[in-house]
Amino acid sequence: MTTEQDRGEARCNQVLDAAATCFRQRGFHGASMAELARAAGMSVGHIYHYFENKEAIIAAIVERDVAEILALLDSLHDEEDILQALIREAGNEMEESPCSDEALQVEILAEASRNPKVAVTVHEGDRRARTRLAETIASGRARRGLPPLADLEARTEIIIALFEGLMLRRIRHPKAVDDATIAVLRSTLHTLLET
Amino acid sequence: MTTEQDRGEARCNQVLDAAATCFRQRGFHGASMAELARAAGMSVGHIYHYFENKEAIIAAIVERDVAEILALLDSLHDEEDILQALIREAGNEMEESPCSDEALQVEILAEASRNPKVAVTVHEGDRRARTRLAETIASGRARRGLPPLADLEARTEIIIALFEGLMLRRIRHPKAVDDATIAVLRSTLHTLLET
Repeated sequence: MTTEQDRGEARCNQVLDAAATCFRQRGFHGASMAELARAAGMSVGHIYHYFENKEAIIAAIVERDVAEILALLDSLHDEEDILQALIREAGNEMEESPCSDEALQVEILAEASRNPKVAVTVHEGDRRARTRLAETIASGRARRGLPPLADLEARTEIIIALFEGLMLRRIRHPKAVDDATIAVLRSTLHTLLET
Repeated sequence: MTTEQDRGEARCNQVLDAAATCFRQRGFHGASMAELARAAGMSVGHIYHYFENKEAIIAAIVERDVAEILALLDSLHDEEDILQALIREAGNEMEESPCSDEALQVEILAEASRNPKVAVTVHEGDRRARTRLAETIASGRARRGLPPLADLEARTEIIIALFEGLMLRRIRHPKAVDDATIAVLRSTLHTLLET
C-alpha cells in the first residue's frame, strides 16, 4: 500500500516538475496538457488521472511550495536562535534559488490576478505561510527575551514583500541579487526582526 | 504642427490605456490586436499605424511608466529634504495606486521572463529608473550632510524590491497594504536612506 502511495506521489511530482518547466517556457495558457504529458513522459490520460485540469496542477504546485516553506520554518525551531537562523536562511534561499524560479512564480501570479479559482488557491496558501512566519518570528523573539510586537503582522508582510520582491527583481535586473544586496537584505531583516 | 503632434500623442495614450486594460483582463497572449482596437475605439489599421505589434505596445507602456518614475524623482529635487520626500511619496504611491496596477505589471514581468525582446525593453527601463533613484538618494544624503554610501546600489536595489514586492503582494494577499504595513514600509525606508 505504502509503496503504491509512494509511487503515486512520485508520479504526481513528475507531472508537477514537467508542468513547472512548461509553464515557465510557454506560460500557463501557452502550455497544453499534451505538451505537459510529453514533458512528463506520460500519456495525457495518465495526467488526467492525477489532475483534472491545469488549474489543479497550479494548485498542487502552490501547495508544494507552501509545504516547503512550512517545513523550512518548522526546522528553524530546533535552532538556538530562531531569528538569526531566519536571517541566515533568507539570504541562503535567495542565493541558492535557481534563476528559473521567478519565471514560474510570476506565471502563477499572472494567472491568479485573472482567474478567481487560482486566486483562491494562492490566497489560502499565502495565508498559511504568512501565519506560520509570524508565529516563527514571535517564538524567536520570545526565546531571545525580546518584547512581543504590536505590528507583528505588518512586519511579517514587509519581510515577505522584500523577499518575494527581490526574487522577482531578477526579471527586471538579472544582476539584482549579488553579495552586496544580500548583505543589505540581511541588515534590513535584522532591523525588522530584532529591534 | 504641435497640435497634430499632441493629437498623435493623445491617440497613442488612448491605445496604451486600452491595451493595459486588455492585458490585465485577458493576458498579453489572450488579448488580440482586434480586441485592443475595439477597446480603444479605433480600427485595427489605425492601431498598426502607431504600433507595429503587441511587443511595441508593451515597450511603450514600460516607457511611459519609466517616464512617470523619472518625473516623480526629478520633482523631489525641489523639496528641502529629498529623503523625507522620498519616504513620503513611496507610502503615498503605495496607498493611492489603483488595485489593477499589479495585474498589468505581473503580465509585463511574465512576458519579459519568456520573450527576449520584451526582456531587453524591461531591463533598459529598469536601468534608467534605478540609476535615477540612486542619484536621487545620493543628492538627498549630500543635502543633509550625510556621508556617501559604499553600498548605494545595493540599498537602491533593496528599496525597489521592497516597493515592487509590496505592490505585487496584493495578488497573494489582497489586504497586504494597510496603514500598519505603510508605517513599517516608511520606517524601513528611513533605515535604508537616512542611516
